[in-house]
Amino acid sequence: MNKEIIVQKFGGSSVANIERIKNVARRVVATKTKFNHVVVVVSALGDTTDELEAMAFQLSKNPTDREMDMLMSTGEQISCALLAIAIKGLGKNSISFTGGQVGIITDTSHTHARIQKIDAKRIRKALDENKIVIVTGYQGITEENDITTLGRGGSDLTAVALAQTLKANVCEIYTDVDGIYTTDPRIVQEARKIKVITFDEMLEMASLGAQVMQARSIEVAKRFNIPLHVRSSFSKEEGTMIVQDNEKLEEVAVRGVTCNKSEAKITICAVPDKPGAASKIFTWLAKAGINVDTIVQNISHDRQRTDISFTVPDAQFTKALATTKKIAQKIGAGEILDDQEIARVSVVGSGMRSHPGIAAKMFQTLADNKINIDMITTSEISISCIINYKHTDKAVRALHKKFNLGQI
Amino acid sequence: MNKEIIVQKFGGSSVANIERIKNVARRVVATKTKFNHVVVVVSALGDTTDELEAMAFQLSKNPTDREMDMLMSTGEQISCALLAIAIKGLGKNSISFTGGQVGIITDTSHTHARIQKIDAKRIRKALDENKIVIVTGYQGITEENDITTLGRGGSDLTAVALAQTLKANVCEIYTDVDGIYTTDPRIVQEARKIKVITFDEMLEMASLGAQVMQARSIEVAKRFNIPLHVRSSFSKEEGTMIVQDNEKLEEVAVRGVTCNKSEAKITICAVPDKPGAASKIFTWLAKAGINVDTIVQNISHDRQRTDISFTVPDAQFTKALATTKKIAQKIGAGEILDDQEIARVSVVGSGMRSHPGIAAKMFQTLADNKINIDMITTSEISISCIINYKHTDKAVRALHKKFNLGQI
Repeated sequence: MNKEIIVQKFGGSSVANIERIKNVARRVVATKTKFNHVVVVVSALGDTTDELEAMAFQLSKNPTDREMDMLMSTGEQISCALLAIAIKGLGKNSISFTGGQVGIITDTSHTHARIQKIDAKRIRKALDENKIVIVTGYQGITEENDITTLGRGGSDLTAVALAQTLKANVCEIYTDVDGIYTTDPRIVQEARKIKVITFDEMLEMASLGAQVMQARSIEVAKRFNIPLHVRSSFSKEEGTMIVQDNEKLEEVAVRGVTCNKSEAKITICAVPDKPGAASKIFTWLAKAGINVDTIVQNISHDRQRTDISFTVPDAQFTKALATTKKIAQKIGAGEILDDQEIARVSVVGSGMRSHPGIAAKMFQTLADNKINIDMITTSEISISCIINYKHTDKAVRALHKKFNLGQI
Repeated sequence: MNKEIIVQKFGGSSVANIERIKNVARRVVATKTKFNHVVVVVSALGDTTDELEAMAFQLSKNPTDREMDMLMSTGEQISCALLAIAIKGLGKNSISFTGGQVGIITDTSHTHARIQKIDAKRIRKALDENKIVIVTGYQGITEENDITTLGRGGSDLTAVALAQTLKANVCEIYTDVDGIYTTDPRIVQEARKIKVITFDEMLEMASLGAQVMQARSIEVAKRFNIPLHVRSSFSKEEGTMIVQDNEKLEEVAVRGVTCNKSEAKITICAVPDKPGAASKIFTWLAKAGINVDTIVQNISHDRQRTDISFTVPDAQFTKALATTKKIAQKIGAGEILDDQEIARVSVVGSGMRSHPGIAAKMFQTLADNKINIDMITTSEISISCIINYKHTDKAVRALHKKFNLGQI
């Protein structure tokens, strides 16, 4: 018997040219033999979005967000119509819709709108008519009928939100990689595709540098428990399933190792150790638009002054440093140290909740490899160390090996 | 004092690249100093539409019209957003809308939809907020919220229909020629730009081969008496005004000379001369999708059999000939003659209503130039002769000179 309903999302590289669109069309048609209902979400063709953006910035240094959405949303409308045409060309009934047409209503935050509700009436009607439904990713409309876009990774979000609305059995995310790996295969040859990973682990991996899916879509999938299948549109192989923590999952302590070299560290020395000091620092940084990541403050021995370190994206380093210097002066702190030559290596795994000693094993591995640890932070299911960026690859390889990630 | 409201339409060549979009933006901003309210209608950038169409036909030999509209309508959405951005870049407030957003409601005849009503509420609101309003040409939506396109010349139609809805004082049609000429300047060096022409004359000129504007838009402008100003986006010069017949118009018998070489002639000989014969022939031809243009049937001398000739576009000639042969057999007519080497030359002018002898002068001119006339048809304000296509240019030059069109 056929399963009920599937949502498939195809990224820009999957529909970058005519041949690839045909390939996707064949895949979708094959899926229709296995599922009663197929809903497809598509991103814009290859580099369309970049080209449109470049044109806009040639016309104005500061184009309004509403007009940018009007412009950028055409990319998905084109790929959406073309895919519907390609499927029709294979003899299957299909229909394309814009986000607005299927009632994806968002707030008015143009270029990074949030979905408020989805009506999906037209999708249900088309599915009842046995049509394969193609929906533009990445976009919706406001109550006022203005076109909005959902920001980076927005097409994933469209797919997950539609899967939730339609109570889909599974949501497939097709991309140009064939799944989530235990670590970056460019660094570690033995990196292995993960069969099943939890939403929480995936969220940690994503925030720690694994760029396959945006965190927001995973959060939504987690909240509504929609199983995601991340796989490649260029291969028939199974990819990685992202699911709730459950008994089917392999029992491992560490699921993967990530690294991120594009951060810099700033330390404010001798911050007066009294209530409100940290709050002031990070409020001002936030007001300046700085995305602070890891923050480390250790105890102060003399109960008077303490050092606070934090990391920021490389791109914001100069601005962050200038802002921090001003703040330090205002609150009467000491000197500012900075270090752009840092990297973060992390081990992630929800199994570490029940496996003690993971942190110790990680630190020992780094020590064995003569890698000095600069800062340490932990979450419930991850441990991160800030080290000198020169040692990144060595650290990742050593940790991947130590936790047997290549052999499981 | 400022005039109330203007609608300006810019064709694809006027917005073909970044520099041209900037040029249009400057023009629009300048217009805003002369009019209280400016509404701009834009076509798709240069060849966008052709490129999208080519992609669709690589995916399916027979893409559905609904999907083609979904696809093709993106071209105008892009140029519309870019122009709004460019105007904003010049410091003026502007906003872009799709046809759907401003309530251009059409029937469901995808790829050649007809406008049923225009709400224009959002346009009025934006104009009240002193914004320059940019609207996508060529498209609307159905009551069901499906995107439709209006067919060839659809952007002109959008402009004229908006001008009517908004009670605009004038509607400017910017194109890559600087106006309507007395005849094709490539054939006759002395061809002169016409300052003012009537809707009726323009309609005749358009249907007889002058390709500047589509007939449908001119008909709508005529019905609602909306003065059109056809002019070039690459020059500041005045173009041609198209208006109702009025006293301001120069009193001339002939306004222009047109020619059309892309027709072929078919003659059915010895058609039984009884009621219903012609009706049958042209009903069947219409059912076969043949666009018959001129039809000539002369009196039958013996009251039993007559010859019927008609012209069809070159592109439909083969199909038309085959269809005609079948029809002739069915109705018991005689042989079929055909001639692809024909051309139509016409003189057009509403003044010929009050100037007798224009036809005689035309025939004499052709005779003086040893050009044989094959068929003759007349309307109230035009006279057309079908001649051998080899003589087209000579005929046009002679008529242009005889009616003093270069010197007025």
